[in-house]
Amino acid sequence: MMDTRFSAAIHALILIAASETPMTSEQIAESVGTNASYIRKLTRLMKRQGIIASRRGVSGFALLIPPEKLPLRKIYEAVEETERIHVFDLHQNPNDRCIVGRYIRPVLSDVFREIEEKAEQALTHTTLADCMQKMKTEIKQEGKL
Amino acid sequence: MMDTRFSAAIHALILIAASETPMTSEQIAESVGTNASYIRKLTRLMKRQGIIASRRGVSGFALLIPPEKLPLRKIYEAVEETERIHVFDLHQNPNDRCIVGRYIRPVLSDVFREIEEKAEQALTHTTLADCMQKMKTEIKQEGKL
Repeated sequence: MMDTRFSAAIHALILIAASETPMTSEQIAESVGTNASYIRKLTRLMKRQGIIASRRGVSGFALLIPPEKLPLRKIYEAVEETERIHVFDLHQNPNDRCIVGRYIRPVLSDVFREIEEKAEQALTHTTLADCMQKMKTEIKQEGKL
Repeated sequence: MMDTRFSAAIHALILIAASETPMTSEQIAESVGTNASYIRKLTRLMKRQGIIASRRGVSGFALLIPPEKLPLRKIYEAVEETERIHVFDLHQNPNDRCIVGRYIRPVLSDVFREIEEKAEQALTHTTLADCMQKMKTEIKQEGKL
């Protein structure tokens, strides 16, 4: 099953950060390629974590954290509603009458967690500003601006 | 969808590495908690990558690479049949009439790939022997041996 909340949320935040006029859910949805109610779900989750706020008096959102101080991990945690990146599944029914079967799940759970933590650390060290910078570079390389 | 091939394959390899007598697919399946044909699928994939071999004259398998020289990544690649760990999905339909929509997929594809590579590196630096060592430690702590 595709889970594209994280990807869509970064897209929305780049729009919010880069746009000079406040963007509404409808405008964000049009760029992301989804519907406004899906965007409102994401923005509600990001508001709850203090990433964005509704703008007073105008429709649209404002970033509450500068892009260079906004780690992708915070965005991930907000919209995925979990602190953990899950990569590897454990098999369900090892036989606990066998010594290996008895200990395999705690052992692999530890081993997998250590590896997943590396991805979490990398997500902590990458910011929204890094994504925006990469986008600028891509745009320049293509000579589109 | 649960994908537990990798987890089941490590379980099978620990049995093969630790057992003094050759283990058949049926015996491995009993400990892993699955059926022998599933185990034969995994062992076929691991044979193809030179991780194990069938033993001459006896039924059962032998490890071709010592556990301390067998990175989990090699096991992952063999049984998942991919060189890449996939963690994050990209949203499918960004609007390319918007400049952000046009560049978001290549940008996030790069950003996500860098993070996934950290997990791949960690998987390269963890060996089957590390898992076996951790199992020994768990067993000792529980005072079961």
